Order: sequence, then structure tokens, then C-alpha cells
Amino acid sequence: MFRKICLASLFFFVAGLCAQTLKSPDGSLQMEFSLAADGAPQYTLHYKNKAVILPSRLGFEFKNDKTSMQTGFSLENATTATVDDKWKPVWGEESSIRNHYNELAVTLKQAESKRTLVIRFRLFDDGLGFRYEFPQQKELAHFVIKEEHTQFAMAGDHTAWWIPGDYDTQEYDYSKSKLSEIRGLMANSITANLSQTSFSPTGVQTSLMMKSADGIYINIHEAALIDYSCMHLNLDDKKMVFESWLTPDARGDKGYLLAPSKTPWRTIIVSDDARDVVASKIILNLNDPCKIDDTSFIHPVKYVGVWWEMITGKSTWAYTDELPAVQIGVTDYSKVKPNGKHGANNENVKRYIDFAAENGFDAVLVEGWNIGWEDWFGHSKDKVFDFITAYPDFDVQALHTYAASKNVKIVMHHETSGSTRNYERYMEQAYQFMNDNGYDAVKSGYVGEILPRGENHYSQWTVNHYQYAIEEAAKHKIMLNAHEAVRPTGICRTWPNLIGNEAARGTEYQAFGGSKPNHVAVLPFTRLLGGPMDYTPGIFEMDISKLNPDNHSHVNSTLANQLALYVTLYSPLQMAADLPEHYQRFADAFQFIKDVAIDWDESKYLEAEPGEFVTAARKAKGKQDWYVGSVGGENARTSNINFDFLDKGKEYIATIYADAPEAHYKTNPQAYVIRKVLVNSKSKLTQFVAPGGGYAISIKPSAGQNTKGLKKL
Amino acid sequence: MFRKICLASLFFFVAGLCAQTLKSPDGSLQMEFSLAADGAPQYTLHYKNKAVILPSRLGFEFKNDKTSMQTGFSLENATTATVDDKWKPVWGEESSIRNHYNELAVTLKQAESKRTLVIRFRLFDDGLGFRYEFPQQKELAHFVIKEEHTQFAMAGDHTAWWIPGDYDTQEYDYSKSKLSEIRGLMANSITANLSQTSFSPTGVQTSLMMKSADGIYINIHEAALIDYSCMHLNLDDKKMVFESWLTPDARGDKGYLLAPSKTPWRTIIVSDDARDVVASKIILNLNDPCKIDDTSFIHPVKYVGVWWEMITGKSTWAYTDELPAVQIGVTDYSKVKPNGKHGANNENVKRYIDFAAENGFDAVLVEGWNIGWEDWFGHSKDKVFDFITAYPDFDVQALHTYAASKNVKIVMHHETSGSTRNYERYMEQAYQFMNDNGYDAVKSGYVGEILPRGENHYSQWTVNHYQYAIEEAAKHKIMLNAHEAVRPTGICRTWPNLIGNEAARGTEYQAFGGSKPNHVAVLPFTRLLGGPMDYTPGIFEMDISKLNPDNHSHVNSTLANQLALYVTLYSPLQMAADLPEHYQRFADAFQFIKDVAIDWDESKYLEAEPGEFVTAARKAKGKQDWYVGSVGGENARTSNINFDFLDKGKEYIATIYADAPEAHYKTNPQAYVIRKVLVNSKSKLTQFVAPGGGYAISIKPSAGQNTKGLKKL
Repeated sequence: MFRKICLASLFFFVAGLCAQTLKSPDGSLQMEFSLAADGAPQYTLHYKNKAVILPSRLGFEFKNDKTSMQTGFSLENATTATVDDKWKPVWGEESSIRNHYNELAVTLKQAESKRTLVIRFRLFDDGLGFRYEFPQQKELAHFVIKEEHTQFAMAGDHTAWWIPGDYDTQEYDYSKSKLSEIRGLMANSITANLSQTSFSPTGVQTSLMMKSADGIYINIHEAALIDYSCMHLNLDDKKMVFESWLTPDARGDKGYLLAPSKTPWRTIIVSDDARDVVASKIILNLNDPCKIDDTSFIHPVKYVGVWWEMITGKSTWAYTDELPAVQIGVTDYSKVKPNGKHGANNENVKRYIDFAAENGFDAVLVEGWNIGWEDWFGHSKDKVFDFITAYPDFDVQALHTYAASKNVKIVMHHETSGSTRNYERYMEQAYQFMNDNGYDAVKSGYVGEILPRGENHYSQWTVNHYQYAIEEAAKHKIMLNAHEAVRPTGICRTWPNLIGNEAARGTEYQAFGGSKPNHVAVLPFTRLLGGPMDYTPGIFEMDISKLNPDNHSHVNSTLANQLALYVTLYSPLQMAADLPEHYQRFADAFQFIKDVAIDWDESKYLEAEPGEFVTAARKAKGKQDWYVGSVGGENARTSNINFDFLDKGKEYIATIYADAPEAHYKTNPQAYVIRKVLVNSKSKLTQFVAPGGGYAISIKPSAGQNTKGLKKL
Repeated sequence: MFRKICLASLFFFVAGLCAQTLKSPDGSLQMEFSLAADGAPQYTLHYKNKAVILPSRLGFEFKNDKTSMQTGFSLENATTATVDDKWKPVWGEESSIRNHYNELAVTLKQAESKRTLVIRFRLFDDGLGFRYEFPQQKELAHFVIKEEHTQFAMAGDHTAWWIPGDYDTQEYDYSKSKLSEIRGLMANSITANLSQTSFSPTGVQTSLMMKSADGIYINIHEAALIDYSCMHLNLDDKKMVFESWLTPDARGDKGYLLAPSKTPWRTIIVSDDARDVVASKIILNLNDPCKIDDTSFIHPVKYVGVWWEMITGKSTWAYTDELPAVQIGVTDYSKVKPNGKHGANNENVKRYIDFAAENGFDAVLVEGWNIGWEDWFGHSKDKVFDFITAYPDFDVQALHTYAASKNVKIVMHHETSGSTRNYERYMEQAYQFMNDNGYDAVKSGYVGEILPRGENHYSQWTVNHYQYAIEEAAKHKIMLNAHEAVRPTGICRTWPNLIGNEAARGTEYQAFGGSKPNHVAVLPFTRLLGGPMDYTPGIFEMDISKLNPDNHSHVNSTLANQLALYVTLYSPLQMAADLPEHYQRFADAFQFIKDVAIDWDESKYLEAEPGEFVTAARKAKGKQDWYVGSVGGENARTSNINFDFLDKGKEYIATIYADAPEAHYKTNPQAYVIRKVLVNSKSKLTQFVAPGGGYAISIKPSAGQNTKGLKKL
């Protein structure tokens, strides 16, 4: 805790060389704030007396500003506080989340500029968050960030699971390497994307997962990215010091701010147990409480969609192949020749609606329903879509009526092609169109280069756009799932209508050449820490050429692994992404997708190791049912779990969907076995996991069920 | 006219070296289109057999495109047409406008690229317009303009009235020089502006007015600038060849297009009588007909405003001086200390409403009514205004009610500070707010650098924004008067709710150090050709220090010159810009401003010479009254006009407001004389015009009037 003796000394205006220390509630983490000899703010972080962050400097350079905001500070004031409370998310892994931290806020004064800067630290038992605050003051009103200089000095050449730093995409496979090896691996790690801008051979993205030689797991990310540019990390690979590297705007500036204001939180999750990392709620806790008064419109969604057939090339988003380019409001679609492969046609959509209704899904996503897809990406096209005009073969009203008659929603789709002004111009109409036609959720997309031209996907300007869409959607009681937007930073706590994001390599890449088989065992340690991902799992047919003879991609996953993802990749929005006919072929396995819950009272991480395995157990919200999911990585493994999360003395029926012994993500992905057993809180499971495999378990109280013939596990 | 023999040869696919010629309806202008030996399209223009445009090339460079669109063309087709019709503008200098031209459209094929390009020429008796058209074709869909290479090869080292080429402002005094002298005068011609970007020592803006040594007046401008970047002219001052220089976007690109599409028209007005230039309707004629179905909401507006007092520094737009910066939605204005100088307060606005009502004005403009003015420019501030929240001392509803009770409108003011995204986000609400609170006209402003950052005031992106505002305003039946927007190009024909623009150095500069006394004798030859200007004339107190002791600016104009502007600077929107107390001091002169019409059946330019003098006579719409205005330049002159525009045999009373013999814009600007005389169509007037002076005449039929004691002119 904060040392009172030090605070006292401040009253004598002693230069703030004495350190401020702060411990986490359970004492496992300790941080120290101090000013270096040159008046630079700096901090350290220790976990169980081991150094996690070596002395690391904090500060800024402003544009066209004579004084660097990096040195020459003195400590004017320091205050501490302790918070321990709970809050209930609208949806989540837990029905109640504890927010417990000790806080230190240091007020610094720079003699030369006479400016005041506050740095606020919040130390939780599982990590640290800190941010900069610029109070209202005469000496600092409008300012432009040239660079934020926040250091994270590592205590060793850790192992990292990283993706290349990039201003426009996070859709990369993760590389695992020592920090010192990043530079050598960078070029090969940058795979093609429709919009990408890398910036440094040692630049990586957050959230960045690391592990030290002595077994400490360290994760760096940010929380509450609002009207600021997205932070990357650039590594000094001689000193093993990361420094913040903000995403620039069209002119290379990194942020326009105006006091009073504050930066996002910079977060460092730390534990010697990897399960604590994936379970951490620091990032949510550092976000503001919910700002939506009436959240009754927000609900978890399990859905199917007219989507995978276009991703694989079996059908098309576009209605015609006849025109080299189309113009909204000009092209007369009633006069063009249809290509005969348009996925979003009435008949096909009805087929999905029927399938959704029959199998208990909430909704059907339909992409390619609206005009403009003939030349939708790669042209920096301004007025690319209008979001309100359907193709001739998609009858908005009839399909809405049909779906409603079966108690199914259609999920709206707003691909923007990165043309943010165009989307904003239509936004009010588009959301009103949704209100008028029975849509309550929208998937948006930002494929390709951002417009206004010169801006990046992750610059302040565009971050501000994504946030605008969230807030405008909330006004219309619309749930939003934004793809190709900036990676989430826990904003879904404040705006729980943000029920999903992409912002990582999702299942689509399995149809674009395949992802690494351990990709899904990295995501919970990285991408998912900021918020749920619309990963779109549930692929049962791994040979894509069966859908499209021209597409030879292979889904690097076993079928059982696909089932496990519904539990391991937490999201209130879960798709069953494959085609109805594939689910019909594997109806017994499909039963798990039909059964699995998507909102939870409790979550337990039973096993976790980055890139190797993640096993989670979750209790369905308001029910006694539990679901377990476990994914492995490149190699086969044996999972050992016990069921002590179950109510003591209660018997349950567990249905285990697992890889068959001969299963392999590449050669035999559809080999699975399903067995039913009785379990209780004393049960233990030893389960084979194939390469690229996994298993899923549904667990329901046996009371009132037919348990005849079932054996104990 | 088009030579039939040449057209015939095309059927044999002869390379298009044979020239296509076209004459204007009266034969005074003749143009020739041909292909150079290298297949470059080129044209010439002759006026009464004198060369106006020497052979000048036409073409484009596209970005990342292997084939330059400049050479290698063959003529595939050529068609001619003749149009002679009339149309009625919603408001204008004439109640009916004749559109009479011969047209030549050449279809060119580029062998290498297989692309087709159409160039369409329209030759009027007073000038030429031509544009490029890109038909829909497989070989050209999306493309990016690296540069448009449209040449205007001058036949001599003409005298030009020019302002520096600039991507962000037209608010410059005009320089008069030989073309060869532009380079030497450029640096001194670039005076300070809050946003300015010059690009070349020989770059100038359009409309560019020139005069040849043998007395031919030539004006280059453009018409129908829609979703394209604004054209400047860059001079090769060795060869005296101007070339189009488009305004770049944030990345330096000059336009994103998509076939089918067309460029704006490039216009060349030509005559040996300067009066034909100021009277030309080419630019309106080259724009599309009105696209607003119900134009009943559009009406001319004569107004006063809470404006000049802020411009001069007598009062302020801002409510408080207490804060270094404010934040919309954050700053609590009820808790700040007012500065006591806020102009838009209830009491002051009521005073203007009373004055407007008493003197027959339609409306009162009120600037500074809405929160955000404390740090409104110079900071690249994104969310700078919300356009819907009034300062605590401005009661929207009470003032609307008060104004309405006196049959006066309040003109809304939307300063955007160049923050176009912010304006677009609020636009729907802001226009609805106007509808809800009785406003039917808005003055918008774009002071300072454009946001998105990196864009320019005149780039395609921003041009597109201004157009969006016009069209959205029309949906709300709102009239728009945009300041600091791109200079007009006749779009008010298509969108007559665009009742005004600034886009040149307006009266405000008379309070910022003063404009050249002949400035108003240049504007009709340049800025006004594209559409009306909200010049805000009517300043009676030329010594600004009498309003604000700290402001020593002087208005370089006589009072009579100020009166003349209501006629010489045609606009359906005319302000009486000075303070009510100044009008009360000069009530006899003010009578002219009260009387003068602002919409016309007929207009005659009686005298005109760029930068020297302009004398116009206009017949009030639907009435028998005429108004004459005459402005001079730096030196005194004698104006000689006759009244043959009057109905024959009819007697009128003319009230002549003229400079007193001792008047001078600098030393004695308020010396004027008013006399009443009888005139008829045979009357002639010889009238003294002081340096920086002018005169104004109101002419009303004498029938039924008291003519006792009035002498014949």
C-alpha cells in the first residue's frame, strides 16, 4: 500500500525522487512509481517478488510543442484508494464480476511547461492498469500527440505469441518465438490482406501474450480505447523494452486531444498460472459502467447464415457478373443479367430460416442482400453501398414476415468496404430500416482500405467512427458485431450492444488457405481479452473443394475441436457457420451446437497454456447445465480435468463429444466419438485430444432424465 | 458547323487527323477539334477570326495505370447537335434564360488501352464549354486521376486579374498583371489566411479574367463541379499555356472516378465587349436543370445580422473567456463566467429583429448563438459545434416567437470550422432543429483547416461534402449560403436552395485591414460568374476604430459605392451588414437599401471593364421599378449611361445616390449626394464617381407619384 511517510514529504515540496509503491489486494503484485534523476516518470512491476516490468518510462511528445512531456517532472501530489465492488454484465462469462484494486494517482508538474499530468495506476491481483490524465489547465488545451512513450521493459527474452504490428489488420496467424527472434520472423509473418500497413520489423500488436523462462505469464493490452489511436508495441530487441506505438492518421499524427482528457488504460496481466490470464476481467473492469439505460433489447444470439457458401466460393455476394462496376442509384439491377450464383436469394434464405427454426437458432445472417457487391472492394469506392436497397431476388418484407412467423430473426449485414463517411451518411436511415423491418442485430464490415483516404483502420479518426456506430446503434436498440474494426478493449461493458467483433483471423481463413491448428488455443490469451469474437465456428466439412471445386483450402481442425470452440471462445454471439446439409450429415455431433448455451452464470478455466490447450467449463445462465470445451494445438495430448465445479452430491449426465483415436485435423478431421456418462463433483476425466483436436461436453442434472444404461465416468 | 465530309470519312476508319470544326450560333466563335500526330486530342478557339486558344491538348494521367490517357487516340465517331431553348430560374438576374449552343461530341478510342473517351464541346455565342465523358466500358471502371491535362494555350501575354492558386482559400485581393508577371508577383499576392495551401509560383484560380492586347476579354472557369476536385490553372509562362491543376486529396490523388462518369465543364467566355462577360449565362446553362421538385420554400432574402459587430471586434461570438478550451456535451456553460461581450444575446438579437421589422428586412442572421465558440478555430477540433445547443443567453424558442410575431425570420448559422464529419453527423438533427424552430435559411462556414485532416477545402472529398449539405438541406426545405466552401460553378441552377456562397474576399476583409478599392469591380468578372456571392455590403461607417478602438482597419469604399453593390453584385441574398445605429445616422442613404429589389426580371450591363467599373441596371421581378448600380475603382471617373432600357414613352422618378464631388474612399467616404429627377428611355446620365466610389439609382414609374418640383435629368 501507499507509504504515508512518502506522502508526508510532499508537503515540503521535496523533489519526487522517493518512490510510491502500491500492492495488489492480495499482495502478489507490487508496483513502484518514481521519477528518474531527469524527472522522467517511471514505474516497475513485480509479481511474487520477481520483476515483471523493469524500470520503464512514461511520457509523450506533442507535435509542434517546444517541451517534451517526458522529463522535468516533479511530484505534486499522490493519492491512493481501494475499490472492491461487483457489477453485473448484461451478458458475459459470469453473471457477476468483481472489481477489486488498489489505486495510486500521481499528479506531476513539469517545471518548464507548467503543465500538470496525472498518471493513475490500478493494481488488481491479476494485473496492472494505468492511464494518463490531462486535467483542465491554462497551459494545456488542444494538443497533438506525436508519440506516446510508454515503456514496458521486459525482464528477459520471453517467449511471445505475437502477430505483426499493423495499422489496418489483425488477421494474422500467431507466431511463437523468443522476443529476440521477432525481427527474423517478421517478413514471413506478414501474410497478405486486402488492407495492411506494417511499420516496424519489431512491431507487434496487442494484446501480446508472453511467458518468462521462470513461468510467469505476461499480457500487455489496453482498455477503453475511446477517441484515441490504437496502441501497438515496438520492441527494442537489444534491451527487450517495448514502447507504445500509436496508429497515425493521414498526416502521420497520432492523436488530437483536448484537456481535460485521458488516454485508454495500458494493461499488464500477470500470473504464474495461465488460467488466470484467460479468466482475467481487468480489461472489463477498467471500462466505464454500462451507458445504455434500457438494455432489454440486448440478448445473446446463436445463428446460422448465408455466408460460408460465399466465403468458400460456392455462391456469390454479387447478383451479376455482367458489369465491371456498379453505381448506387444509377445501375438498374432489373436490367442486368443475374449470375445465377447469388446466395442471398429468397429461396435460399428461406431454406436457412427453416433450418434455424427447426434447430432452435435465434437468427439467420444474410450477406449479399443489398446492391453494390459487384465491385465492392479494392477500388477505394466512396458510395459503395446504401444499406437499404435489396437486390431484386431478396424480398425484405416477405423474408422478414416469413422469418418472424417462425420466430427467427434475420441478422442485418452492413459491409462498408471501409468507406466510413458513406456509412455514416446512411447510418440513420440504415438503422431505421432495420427497426422498420424487424432486424435487431447487424454485422458490419470494414474490408479494404479506409475512406477518408489516408486514414487507417486503427487511427483515432476511424476508432472514433466505430464508436459512433456503436452509440448510434444503441439509440436504435440495435446490437452490433463489427468486423475488420479495431480490436476490442472491453468497451462492451459500457456499450453491451457491441455483442461481437472480428479483429483477428476468424474461421473464414480456413477457406482462404487454412489457419494454424493451434490458432484457437492462442485467441483466448490475446484477442479475446478485449471482448468476444465472432469467430464463426462449427465447420463440419473440412474439405472446401467439396463446396467449391476451385477452392482447395482445408480447415485445420477436427470436428470435435469445432464443437469445443463454442465453449472455449466465449461469445454471446455464436454462429453455426457451416451449411445446413453438413449439419444434417452429422446430426449427432450437431446436437451439441443446438444444446450449448451462449450466456453464463459462471466460467472456470480448467486447463490453459498459450497455443497448446484451453479447457473451459461454463454454467449456463439461470440453469443447472454446464458445458465444457477443450481445444488442443498442433500435437495430440491428453486432457485431465476434474468436475469439482459441479454441485456437490448431485448427479449429472455428461455427453462427451471427442476426437476418435484416429482423428487428425489434416488427415481425418471428421473422426469423432460421442459417449454419455454419469458425472458428479468428484469425477475426473482423462481425455485424448487429437492433433488440431478437442472435445466438448454437455452436462445436465440427471434428475428426471433417463439414466438407464449410463455408466459413471 | 460540323463538316459532313469529315464525318463520312470516319466510316472508312481513317485515323482522325481531319479536324472537326464547330461554329457558335452567330458565327462569332469557331472551335476546332483535331488529333495531333501522336494521337493527342487538341482544340483551338477563334473569336471573329482571332485566335483565343491556340492548339491545346486534352487528356489525363491515371494513377497506377500503364497507359497515359494523353496520346494514341483515334477518332471513332463525331456527332453534332444544336440546342436553343429557354428556362426559368427560381431566382436570378433574368426571369428567363436562353440556352443556345451548337454541340460537337467526339468519341475517341485509344488503341493501346482499348478505352473510349468522349469529349463534348458546347459552343455558345459568348463562349465554349467542354467536358470529358467516360462511358461504361470493360476497359475502364474505377480509376484515379493523377492529373488532368487540359490546356488553355493563350495567344499572347495577356493582362490578367488573378488570385493565387490555393487548395484552401479564395480570400485574396486580385492582382492585375501581364501573365508573364504572375511569377514575380506571386509571393506578395499570398496574404495570410487561417487555411491556405498554394502550390505553384504560376498557379492561379478560376474564374480567371484576362484581356488581350487587341481587346478580347477571355475568362476561364468551370461549370457543374460535382464529385470532382476543383480546377486551378498552372501557367507555363514561357509558352503562355495554362494547364488544369486539380486539387489533391490527403494522399495527393486528384480524383476517384468510376465509369460511366463525366468531368465538370471547362468554360472559356470570350467577347470584345466586357459587358458580355459579366452578363454571360454559359455557366448556368452548362449545369443540369433544377432537381428540386417543390421550390416554393426558396425565396430571396434581404437581411441584417448580429455579425459585423463580431467581425470588427466590438462584440464576440464566444460566451466566456474563462476557459482555454471547451467540450461539447462536457462544458457546463451555466457554471462559467460570461465575458459580457457576447453578441448573440436575447436583448441584442431583439434589437436587430425590431430593426429588421421596422425597415422591411426579411431576416436577421445571428452568429455565435450556439455553444463552442471559445476555441472554435485553429485547433483542428473534431467535435467543435453541435449546431443545436444555444448559449444560456440565447433563447431559441422565445426569439423565434418574437421574430415571427414581427414577420421576421432568423437566419441559422452553422460554422463547421472545417470539421466536415462532425457537421455531417449533426446535419440531420441540425436541419430538423431548423424546421422545428422556424428557420428556413442557414449560413454555413468552413473557417480553418478541413477535417478529415489532410483534406483540402477544394478536394473532391470536400467538394462532395458541400454538395451533400446542399442536397440534405433541400430535403428539409432549407436555403443554404455556404462560406469558405469551394467557389460556385453554377450549381445553383440545379439546386436553387444554394442561394449564396462566399468563396472570395468579402466585406469582412474591410475590417481585417481593408480590401483594394477596385475589388468589387473585379468580382463580377470572376467570382460572380459561378453564382451569387454573400458579399455582405452596406457598410456606412468606414472607420472601424469607432466600433472597436483596437481595430484600426478602414473600409476602402465610399458610402455610395456600398449602395451600388446591391445592384452590381447580383445576389438573391443581400445583407445590410452594418450596425442599425449607423443606418439610423444615414437614414436618407439607407432608404436605397430598404428599397432595392433582390430578384429580377431583366438585367443590363451598361458599362463594364475589369477592375475599373461595372454599371448594371436591373428590373425588379414582377414590377416596373428599375435599379442601377455603378462601382468604380482606384481612381475617379465619369460614368455615362443612357436609360434606353426603360419602357418607351414612360416617365419615371429616379433617385440618384452618388458620391459628392469631394468624396474619396480613404479620406472622405461618407460624402454623398442624393437627388431626385425625372427620367425616360431617352434620358442620359453623366455621373461623377469618386475614387473607390459609385452610385445607385432607384427608378420608379412616376404615374401616381408626386413629381412636383422634380426636374428632368
